[in-house]
Amino acid sequence: MIETPYLLFLGDAPDQLAAKVAQGIKDWRPENAVGQFRMDGCNADLGIADLTLEEAKAAGAKTLVIGVANRGGIISAAWKEILIAALDAGYDIASGLHNLLRDEADLVAAAERNGRQLHDVRIPSVQYPIANGVKRSGKRCLAVGTDCSVGKMYTALAMDAEMRERGLKSTFRATGQTGILITGGGVPLDAVIADFMAGSIEYLTPDNDADHWDLIEGQGSLYHVSYSGVTMALVHGGQPDALILCHEPTRAHMRGLPDYQQPSLTELRDTALTLARVGNPACQVVGISVNTQHMNEADAKAYLAELERDMALPATDPFRFGAEKLVDALQAV
Amino acid sequence: MIETPYLLFLGDAPDQLAAKVAQGIKDWRPENAVGQFRMDGCNADLGIADLTLEEAKAAGAKTLVIGVANRGGIISAAWKEILIAALDAGYDIASGLHNLLRDEADLVAAAERNGRQLHDVRIPSVQYPIANGVKRSGKRCLAVGTDCSVGKMYTALAMDAEMRERGLKSTFRATGQTGILITGGGVPLDAVIADFMAGSIEYLTPDNDADHWDLIEGQGSLYHVSYSGVTMALVHGGQPDALILCHEPTRAHMRGLPDYQQPSLTELRDTALTLARVGNPACQVVGISVNTQHMNEADAKAYLAELERDMALPATDPFRFGAEKLVDALQAV
Repeated sequence: MIETPYLLFLGDAPDQLAAKVAQGIKDWRPENAVGQFRMDGCNADLGIADLTLEEAKAAGAKTLVIGVANRGGIISAAWKEILIAALDAGYDIASGLHNLLRDEADLVAAAERNGRQLHDVRIPSVQYPIANGVKRSGKRCLAVGTDCSVGKMYTALAMDAEMRERGLKSTFRATGQTGILITGGGVPLDAVIADFMAGSIEYLTPDNDADHWDLIEGQGSLYHVSYSGVTMALVHGGQPDALILCHEPTRAHMRGLPDYQQPSLTELRDTALTLARVGNPACQVVGISVNTQHMNEADAKAYLAELERDMALPATDPFRFGAEKLVDALQAV
Repeated sequence: MIETPYLLFLGDAPDQLAAKVAQGIKDWRPENAVGQFRMDGCNADLGIADLTLEEAKAAGAKTLVIGVANRGGIISAAWKEILIAALDAGYDIASGLHNLLRDEADLVAAAERNGRQLHDVRIPSVQYPIANGVKRSGKRCLAVGTDCSVGKMYTALAMDAEMRERGLKSTFRATGQTGILITGGGVPLDAVIADFMAGSIEYLTPDNDADHWDLIEGQGSLYHVSYSGVTMALVHGGQPDALILCHEPTRAHMRGLPDYQQPSLTELRDTALTLARVGNPACQVVGISVNTQHMNEADAKAYLAELERDMALPATDPFRFGAEKLVDALQAV
């Protein structure tokens, strides 16, 4: 686990989009975001306090989180200076960058000198077991998509937030880099060795109270040929009681695969449910989450209403219209 | 690739079963097996010539293959003496053991001294790409099972042998340690990082002649919750034109999962075909391979006849009754 709260390092982010990891932390775990640290030329702004290393430390920050993509895949000299100063000031550092903190000799030396940790969340830090398929107590919900990047993480985070607001027992379980940085822990599933994928998800979602829900972040899609094996491990390792179907209706083709079309929601429902029931015969599809960002409000509402009629399932865009319907459906399970 | 032919090292195998990797090589690629090397106390025998390191070298052997499981997961001092002598005699060494040759300092030193290679086939030696899903030329057949260890490797090897005998273009594509040692190359799929699984299978089964068949070794099962993600990557990365359903009818439960039952062949057919058609809309289920080792001959034949009637597919036990029917079915695709 990464120690919270964080000082969010935005570096020299060229635009707001480059800081989307930091934005995710600020949006979903504002209590983890003590402040932001911006370098000269930074064009991103989270709208929270700009703090120096010392100020954030005094305010309780434990870890400097690199909340921005680096340019050209290099940890620059300008960044290094600040990262080393942070280690010297007693911070741990956490990063989801492709190039690892641990591969930078000067950062490793500064961390050792100060007894601090470097968290590279792209790399598993645990030797996961092979899945044993034993039924676990508590409830689990998994978001599955017609494609990659259709809003599965957002859906799970929004449902988790709504459940907490209702005073229900809920934990968002991160399976990707951004989710891990947002919550401070999780499994970087795409970097796990094949044989241990399902086991890593069993590890992530252990026995729990009968009325507790794990909201498991989905990855890939059963219909995305590059990553479907990763999704399959979530469907079986996660032992979901409930599935949420996630969709983005305006895609011309599957992400990164120009020759592939998205399946229909009916196809996804039938395939995902058949497979999920191998691991949990009681599994149900309980709702649909649609990313309507490329539709106007009238079209989005009409589309959702049509889906509800056709699929006999609650359908919403949790970002635009709230996650209430999906949480109502979970409570009815 | 591992250089062939081999001298098969049986060490101090306590029984014949411990030497099953060597047995597989001798059964399926006898031309790769120049001879066997047995230590004092070895209780396995492949029925081929016992050769010294020097004799096998003179007969053309290039690689000493560890064809036996080691006791207690330790490469013993007695083994070491022979392995080092083999390196000094100019052999490479290939191993599928869990504990790696490369982790043994004395073996590494002897290999370096002699300019020889240590092949640990449990570990990928290639940085595989992410799958791109682009349609490849040539044909591919994948064996999928109702469970793990139901004879998928054997089925693909038997079909490959039958195809070669008929003068057809065919390549067995290994995806596990034993298969890799048998043929000298392949992908150790269970050890590949999640994101690259499907890509590793695309890499293994590249563009080929229009009338060439890759016979891809299956792994796991879509219905085995521990390993289904690995299987999924084969179904999509392999882009199969033909699926063979593999089954062992006498199992009390899924291998290693006492609370799970095998699916019916109908369920496997429908699920595997639906998923395979995402990657290759032309995919067909062409036959059934049954491991009848625990049935008497009359029962086995009756069972196969019943399956052929019920499923309208050719069904055989390729070990017991030959792979002809399955190859006939492939030729009809």
